[in-house]
Amino acid sequence: MNRTALVNRTALVNLSAPDAPRHLVSELGERALLARIRARLPRPPTSVIVGVGDDAAVVAPARNIRLVLTTDALVEGVHFERAFSVPADIGYKALAVNLSDLAAMGATPEWALLSLALPDDAIVDEVEALVGGLADLASKENLAVVGGNVTRSPGPLVIDVTAVGSVHPRRFLTRSGGRPGDDLYLSGSVGAGAAGLEMLQAGERSGEGSGCIGRYQRPPARVRLGRALAHARAARAAMDLSDGLADAVRQVAQASGCGAEVIESALPIAEAARKWWDARGVDAVRAALTGGDDYELLVAAPPAWRGRLRHAQRHVAKPPLTRIGKLTRAEGEYLLLRDGRTEVLPGGFEHF
Amino acid sequence: MNRTALVNRTALVNLSAPDAPRHLVSELGERALLARIRARLPRPPTSVIVGVGDDAAVVAPARNIRLVLTTDALVEGVHFERAFSVPADIGYKALAVNLSDLAAMGATPEWALLSLALPDDAIVDEVEALVGGLADLASKENLAVVGGNVTRSPGPLVIDVTAVGSVHPRRFLTRSGGRPGDDLYLSGSVGAGAAGLEMLQAGERSGEGSGCIGRYQRPPARVRLGRALAHARAARAAMDLSDGLADAVRQVAQASGCGAEVIESALPIAEAARKWWDARGVDAVRAALTGGDDYELLVAAPPAWRGRLRHAQRHVAKPPLTRIGKLTRAEGEYLLLRDGRTEVLPGGFEHF
Repeated sequence: MNRTALVNRTALVNLSAPDAPRHLVSELGERALLARIRARLPRPPTSVIVGVGDDAAVVAPARNIRLVLTTDALVEGVHFERAFSVPADIGYKALAVNLSDLAAMGATPEWALLSLALPDDAIVDEVEALVGGLADLASKENLAVVGGNVTRSPGPLVIDVTAVGSVHPRRFLTRSGGRPGDDLYLSGSVGAGAAGLEMLQAGERSGEGSGCIGRYQRPPARVRLGRALAHARAARAAMDLSDGLADAVRQVAQASGCGAEVIESALPIAEAARKWWDARGVDAVRAALTGGDDYELLVAAPPAWRGRLRHAQRHVAKPPLTRIGKLTRAEGEYLLLRDGRTEVLPGGFEHF
Repeated sequence: MNRTALVNRTALVNLSAPDAPRHLVSELGERALLARIRARLPRPPTSVIVGVGDDAAVVAPARNIRLVLTTDALVEGVHFERAFSVPADIGYKALAVNLSDLAAMGATPEWALLSLALPDDAIVDEVEALVGGLADLASKENLAVVGGNVTRSPGPLVIDVTAVGSVHPRRFLTRSGGRPGDDLYLSGSVGAGAAGLEMLQAGERSGEGSGCIGRYQRPPARVRLGRALAHARAARAAMDLSDGLADAVRQVAQASGCGAEVIESALPIAEAARKWWDARGVDAVRAALTGGDDYELLVAAPPAWRGRLRHAQRHVAKPPLTRIGKLTRAEGEYLLLRDGRTEVLPGGFEHF
């Protein structure tokens, strides 16, 4: 759904009128729904440093302690199909998407909680494999799974993970820290996750696209990079790419009160993904910009901080950061510079 | 499912054999599944003070800071029906069941995350009402909702709440702290939640049972009592009654390496619930022992600590604590003393 359509639809909904029709969430759109939910919540106390609306929340249990809290769910039939991912991959990804949120805040993963809603046909060894996949990633990232909940689901398998990380009180990253003139950097490349899903849907299982399929099934979480950027004070804003690069650019620019320009020729699109789309006559740039499942980081930093970025990159060589554009003064204007022309940057993915 | 059946069924499942049949989770039982999940998780680091298996986890972000983490989900068709609870009640209860876990640890609620999976027919104002109900309780308990996640569900409405509380490093309550000879205390009364659900299922909406219905729809969370008990060092063990009193007695005794005796005549059964069951020829004691949805606290404390208990009770007069039995040396033996006879204490509720 593009931004304009979203705004128009929202304007149609006025629940304050006593005879307001009963609007479906699917008609309202995800962002408008989140705004309404947010409006229902009480004003946060001073222990809340960053509340609803960023990749994760930052809270202060004590004066010099900052914790980062995030929760993200994978729902069968929405975020995964059992036909496309083995249980171990599903468990891995359920934690990875949460670690990606911690990475975007520059946090060190510490603890996680796992909440499972299992359908009646759930198989014991599949549940064990799912937990095993999650445990693999937890071990790799030195994160402890400290609790959780298991219940029955009369519908899909739902995996809800909550992750808690720690950050230095003055060195965490938010979406809103960017300023006009900041360069925008992307870690790694985009497109592989979305192309991998298309390959699975088309029945591909191996060959040239196996890298993309692997990326879709077990996405990275750029925890080391996010932490290095925060530690080196090398970034003013950061966000992870769960809903696509174009969406992340819009979100960071919007939260920072800026506009944004993305340079098409600078975009690092995964080679196998580009080939996949080219062979099908699909606009690879658009597909890579709007596709989800990449879980890379988008970072904003002023040109004067390039030395700090190089410093962070020396500590964490992979994935490389690529400059893909910049934040501008034109608040609300999100552009794609392509072949000498200026286009509107595509919108992001919405779940509703 | 009773304990013996559970043990027998577990013994039948041997997944290490290469030709092991594919066992359904529903055949294995909830506790056996939890044990298998736990076995898959890596050994926790020293920052984890209490890990998987208690009402909530206790972690140490710094030397003198202890946080309590818990997550609990409400699933439509399993934990609630939209016919029996208005959206605001569902939101309220989703937070209450988590606060009840914090209460059982003696923790002060601090922050929460809300994860919603919404069916395609979800109505905007119902989602807002749900969040509003949760926000009401959050305000009452001075807890800040700091983030969350909204996604689509191809099946039921799923509400997953994660709550974080704080505790004094040496004054939190676990299930495992009890010792033989400790008295067992129950806060408030039992039976109202389970009877309330039965009334709703039978089409009752008001009258004598409205107190029970209200208890089912908006259960209490004994946050002030739990905190007062922990603060006064008045309890050696505590647990909340999410899966019924009999289950809680068994769990506290088992975690503490004890047996337990419950005195039937001492049980504070909610008057309206007793009437409801008596009128239907149902054994009210058994129904109150095995019914869920009460969310009271079960507490173990040695007789010598009665002064401390009175002290805590002076600070938090309601609900009163009633002595209902004691922990014994007979590890694994859970008894109900009834009309001069000794029976086996009923088992608890399992979701599978």
